[in-house]
Amino acid sequence: MDRMNQVSQLAVSSPGKIVLVVLDGLGGLPHPETGKTELETARTPHLDRLAKEGICGMSEPLGAGLTPGSGPGHLALFGYDPFAFTIGRGILEALGIDFPLEKGDIAARGNFCTIDAKGAITDRRAGRISTEVCTRLCEELSRIGFQGMKVFVAPVEGHRFLLVLRGAGLSPDLADSDPQQVGVPPKEVVALSREAEATAAVVNSWISKARGVLADHHPANMVVLRGFARLPHLPSMGELYKLNPVAIATYPMYRGLARLVGMKVVDCGRSVREQFDTLAKYYAGHDFLFVHIKRTDTAGEDGDFKRKVEAIEEVDGAMPQVMDLKPDVIAVTGDHSTPAAMKAHSWHPVPFVLHSPLCRPDDVMEFSERACSKGALGRFPALDIMPLALAHAQKLTKYGA
Amino acid sequence: MDRMNQVSQLAVSSPGKIVLVVLDGLGGLPHPETGKTELETARTPHLDRLAKEGICGMSEPLGAGLTPGSGPGHLALFGYDPFAFTIGRGILEALGIDFPLEKGDIAARGNFCTIDAKGAITDRRAGRISTEVCTRLCEELSRIGFQGMKVFVAPVEGHRFLLVLRGAGLSPDLADSDPQQVGVPPKEVVALSREAEATAAVVNSWISKARGVLADHHPANMVVLRGFARLPHLPSMGELYKLNPVAIATYPMYRGLARLVGMKVVDCGRSVREQFDTLAKYYAGHDFLFVHIKRTDTAGEDGDFKRKVEAIEEVDGAMPQVMDLKPDVIAVTGDHSTPAAMKAHSWHPVPFVLHSPLCRPDDVMEFSERACSKGALGRFPALDIMPLALAHAQKLTKYGA
Repeated sequence: MDRMNQVSQLAVSSPGKIVLVVLDGLGGLPHPETGKTELETARTPHLDRLAKEGICGMSEPLGAGLTPGSGPGHLALFGYDPFAFTIGRGILEALGIDFPLEKGDIAARGNFCTIDAKGAITDRRAGRISTEVCTRLCEELSRIGFQGMKVFVAPVEGHRFLLVLRGAGLSPDLADSDPQQVGVPPKEVVALSREAEATAAVVNSWISKARGVLADHHPANMVVLRGFARLPHLPSMGELYKLNPVAIATYPMYRGLARLVGMKVVDCGRSVREQFDTLAKYYAGHDFLFVHIKRTDTAGEDGDFKRKVEAIEEVDGAMPQVMDLKPDVIAVTGDHSTPAAMKAHSWHPVPFVLHSPLCRPDDVMEFSERACSKGALGRFPALDIMPLALAHAQKLTKYGA
Repeated sequence: MDRMNQVSQLAVSSPGKIVLVVLDGLGGLPHPETGKTELETARTPHLDRLAKEGICGMSEPLGAGLTPGSGPGHLALFGYDPFAFTIGRGILEALGIDFPLEKGDIAARGNFCTIDAKGAITDRRAGRISTEVCTRLCEELSRIGFQGMKVFVAPVEGHRFLLVLRGAGLSPDLADSDPQQVGVPPKEVVALSREAEATAAVVNSWISKARGVLADHHPANMVVLRGFARLPHLPSMGELYKLNPVAIATYPMYRGLARLVGMKVVDCGRSVREQFDTLAKYYAGHDFLFVHIKRTDTAGEDGDFKRKVEAIEEVDGAMPQVMDLKPDVIAVTGDHSTPAAMKAHSWHPVPFVLHSPLCRPDDVMEFSERACSKGALGRFPALDIMPLALAHAQKLTKYGA
């Protein structure tokens, strides 16, 4: 918070433009056969040029050894201390589907799942039902009524849905019903404070009614809920940094997160090419343009080294579109590492490059984990990225006389 | 504290195993003739292999320029902020000899010393009397009685002993009587707070009686006391990190320190070889194995460059025993530097290597101050070591959704 206030007090509006390209889960681990990471394997002439001309380092979202979820990873990139600002999963899901949350609403992330005759979960994703089936089931669940309360059930994607409770006296202080494993039944929702006891009772009653509604809808014959949360207050990037930011992201959660920090979130198609076309389209009207690429992370999570390499190469191929715009700052990094070898987010620091006419270039000649480790920025907290970007775009004034 | 809580909340039990080898006082300074430090001079093929395959850096126990004692140096390695958790010298001595301290006890480290006819100290270690003589003298001092109070005098090693006061209303808020120099008399013990005034009076009275008892025992004809302290509360490594740790240390103070953070402390002989045999013996039953090597520090303190080189080489020779066990994490470092050139602890950062199948290797090709300075971890706080080790052993879950 202190750091954020310091930066905020120095922020001024200026014509300088910043483009932040986030390759989700960018960082990787060496392939056992080649000793090279995904990024080191990819052919990336344009990113290498940025590294050659720019200043590099390894960004750490949360500090040594700590693995961030997508929320904390992005908050750090935008300059919000992820330990000071926490965003529940339910809220992220709601924002990602443009659900018009109101102050006081309680949101949770739901999964349709499969239970056996004894009630034990056999598939946490209900055989990955289609979004169409999910939508139809959500409509059925929406008919469950409670006196003095509104309950919304909205489809997200595949087996995922959003549950929102709106009414007086609700509390989000609830433990998950999702046991995060198969072979056991969903848990009763437990209140984590006295104030939440009434809400827990409502939620458990809703779950029980939902089970009845879904009884004949195998494989989606049950639900699990997690990440109960209420809308947090985050100061907007406009307030904090005097920026007029736009987000070019395809995946709901990142669109929601961008909205939460006050970015304008625009339609941008699905492909990398369409995303970069969208960037060009909104370039004139904004001074901070955030491009979020999801494919790198998805490939990493799937353990698909080759597909992650291809995703990186695809972004590299589109980079000239950004470079041709000649923004004052181009920053490229990830919100965390997702090594294909681990099929999961990890704690490993993330390659970072900042390219700007005002940067002091180091000796890094290519954009890779190994090369960026030797960059002039060293291993540094991701929270430094916003002040660095703002400074190089001449959006921070001098501190003190 | 915050960092510790963050790590603690993410800690989970897992099968992963961590071996932490601490060469006390490992870091050194260049020899004036060769320009190489002790570690750079030593032949260390196995440590070099770990550096080649692992990730390296320079660990700083307290921050730039600050020299730690053994307590703070080790607390930092174990993930306890040495400025938040302070442990008096008296407590360390007590723990090191298995003295059954009770809550409220006041412990101090004592030295037998030699004074001249005028009462001035001529030898701060009483000619380094044997442990046998020390034991006999402690028995005599134990007979000094106080009403309503128990006073324990226990031998430690050589001229060193432990004084423990047990009774109501005692306070450890006392200055040392040890002037830490010769040519002056021991100081009167001064109360540092009003609550400690009665305790100061008791201690000064005890010292005066002790002087009487020792009058005929030249060279051990007086005592000096320092490090008055009470048992602190430290959360155990089991509570904090869900670890089942074991300490393989020969020297009392380090055994005591390990016990204080909840490690099981086992018999391990005296030699490096015996210590590593002990490691192998306890490997199956523990997931965190701390090996403490004292000889490097002793040689450094004695200003014996060559002996420190040999001590490092001896540890290197034993490393294959650790490597053959294939732990998920091998971390090798020191608790601080003890350059032979300085004959004392110093502030210089300490070489660090972490070896793990999940680490992202850097370009460091040997284990030395010079090489580790260029490692991917850079110069980093020793408090990062525990989260890094836990992460690489897959003992930390993701933070946030």
